[in-house]
Amino acid sequence: MIKVLRLGHRAGRDDRISTHVGLTSRQWGASEIVYSGQKDSNMLESLKDTAERWGGEFKISYTEEWRDIIRDFDGLTVQLTMYGEKIGDKEEDLKKEFRGQDLLVVVGAEKVPRWVYENVDYNISVGNQPHSEIAALAVFLDRVQEDGIKDCFEDADIEVVPSEKDKLTK
Amino acid sequence: MIKVLRLGHRAGRDDRISTHVGLTSRQWGASEIVYSGQKDSNMLESLKDTAERWGGEFKISYTEEWRDIIRDFDGLTVQLTMYGEKIGDKEEDLKKEFRGQDLLVVVGAEKVPRWVYENVDYNISVGNQPHSEIAALAVFLDRVQEDGIKDCFEDADIEVVPSEKDKLTK
Repeated sequence: MIKVLRLGHRAGRDDRISTHVGLTSRQWGASEIVYSGQKDSNMLESLKDTAERWGGEFKISYTEEWRDIIRDFDGLTVQLTMYGEKIGDKEEDLKKEFRGQDLLVVVGAEKVPRWVYENVDYNISVGNQPHSEIAALAVFLDRVQEDGIKDCFEDADIEVVPSEKDKLTK
Repeated sequence: MIKVLRLGHRAGRDDRISTHVGLTSRQWGASEIVYSGQKDSNMLESLKDTAERWGGEFKISYTEEWRDIIRDFDGLTVQLTMYGEKIGDKEEDLKKEFRGQDLLVVVGAEKVPRWVYENVDYNISVGNQPHSEIAALAVFLDRVQEDGIKDCFEDADIEVVPSEKDKLTK
């Protein structure tokens, strides 16, 4: 099981980025995302709406108690940060550890409290350059799983039919 | 050489997403990004500024003539779209083709004109679920390259020192 914790959401400024973090989590097979920071009911509702139409059981929630999410997680906890150890150096270890247990991935907005760095099992960088927490999350989930892109979502109202040149749905 | 074309930028609404598209392109080794849609000088300047401080030669520009960028490109052209053929099915072909030539990756905002679907070599989906063009771009560039995450950027004012628990720069 994969769970994602999105820290420090700022309503307005981060709504599209945080939405992309949610959709990316779902596409790469996470079963749950928890948002923290400012509560942004519009963003949460719109994401829930999309997840419902496209199927599957992706849980979306909000908490103020984000420390508890990390502290109480029974499994491997990883923060993605451009300051962390290189994913290329840790990939095999992470894959092995993930095989035996659940995984919590933490992605922050601009300022992540020092507490997080000290209280996760790994701080991992998917690139040490300024990039994007969405890119980091996607590539991380893609690398630690075999074929991480999830295809089947149950009870979908809408589904894409992959195509060479067209936009087809069923 | 990898070049990225970002279509349909909307000033204001897309500025952070388009910035992340630019930073992701740079982190995964693209040498150039061209933006189209609404001209957004603030976004372009801020991205140029970041790229300059962190080093390397990443070219950032704007054009209204995005069709010409695709039509005149001498190499492989790929649009990333959730409607395209699955990356898992095409990965080996793409890798082989990319080895011998340059690569143009096209990523759109919400509505991409039909012309694009018909005038690129491949329409590729990195997931057929609603997700994120940033996630799609990152995983695409990560998969078609061996170790796509770029480490060295020349003449950087600032560099991260990867660390287990700290935020270190030099």
